[in-house]
Amino acid sequence: MQYITSLITATAKPPPDNAAVFSRWFVNHSSWGVLMTVDGQGFPFGNVISSSDGGTGIPYFYLSTLYDPTGMNALKNSKSCFTLSETALGTCGQADPQFPKCAKIALSGDVLRELVSVEEDSKEAAFAEAALFANHPQLSGWPKGHNFTVFKLRLKNIFLVNKLAPARYVPIDDYFKAI
Amino acid sequence: MQYITSLITATAKPPPDNAAVFSRWFVNHSSWGVLMTVDGQGFPFGNVISSSDGGTGIPYFYLSTLYDPTGMNALKNSKSCFTLSETALGTCGQADPQFPKCAKIALSGDVLRELVSVEEDSKEAAFAEAALFANHPQLSGWPKGHNFTVFKLRLKNIFLVNKLAPARYVPIDDYFKAI
Repeated sequence: MQYITSLITATAKPPPDNAAVFSRWFVNHSSWGVLMTVDGQGFPFGNVISSSDGGTGIPYFYLSTLYDPTGMNALKNSKSCFTLSETALGTCGQADPQFPKCAKIALSGDVLRELVSVEEDSKEAAFAEAALFANHPQLSGWPKGHNFTVFKLRLKNIFLVNKLAPARYVPIDDYFKAI
Repeated sequence: MQYITSLITATAKPPPDNAAVFSRWFVNHSSWGVLMTVDGQGFPFGNVISSSDGGTGIPYFYLSTLYDPTGMNALKNSKSCFTLSETALGTCGQADPQFPKCAKIALSGDVLRELVSVEEDSKEAAFAEAALFANHPQLSGWPKGHNFTVFKLRLKNIFLVNKLAPARYVPIDDYFKAI
């Protein structure tokens, strides 16, 4: 993987038919979503989390492992999902958020803390932090005592609804090759 | 419970300190969020779902139990969470969606299908459907063959962040008594 910030998707919303291209655009252009973990009692817990993929297709997050249930849950159980609504992008027109033509995507996988002791991961962590702070300057400089650190979502399943048709599951390889 | 549509909260955003009053306003004024279930492999799954509480504080949804993972998961495992961002209300100003002053709420509990054979539940289902269709006219008239039906969230925990302070857990009794 090349950690260069020029990897960005087209600005214009792509047509809905190519699910992989549409998904890459959707993830790249979204600035926040709901990030889920599962707690010790088996309940899902969803938090509103800002994200950036820096053009790579991988969602990155900045989480506290000390005061935030999401970060604390993730260290015990990495099973996760990150869900985005096109409503947040303002490109749904008059379509209701639940109406299929207003796109929604659920990215399932494992939410992982970067292992900064491994050189390759360290490069990725630095890239991800730069991408997050570029898109979300308000996240920069948060208290060191809160143990904020970069997490990534290792994708396993991509569920996409973006037209009047059954939901589609986008193959992970297609997603990463789409750009 | 009285099923009258006049039970609505104040229009203006309340100050953040009274967590129960703020939460009722937040839930009542939100039109969509991410509704989570847990699948058979223990992964959380979040879907973008429109909601209405009809002024009662109870989030109601219109879900398919035939083609939608959320409805299908819910019938097997009711553990759920419904998460809202104040960003969607447009009242966060320039605050980043993850910044604590931009409110977020995670409503945890069980997502349940109305039992229309029980008279009281039947009244509630009719009320909920009317409230949903009033706020989301595009949900009305969806194909009967998709088994769309009303679900509710039976609240167990309310996690609220709406100011520069630790997250608060709003007692359920306080929440329902707040109006």
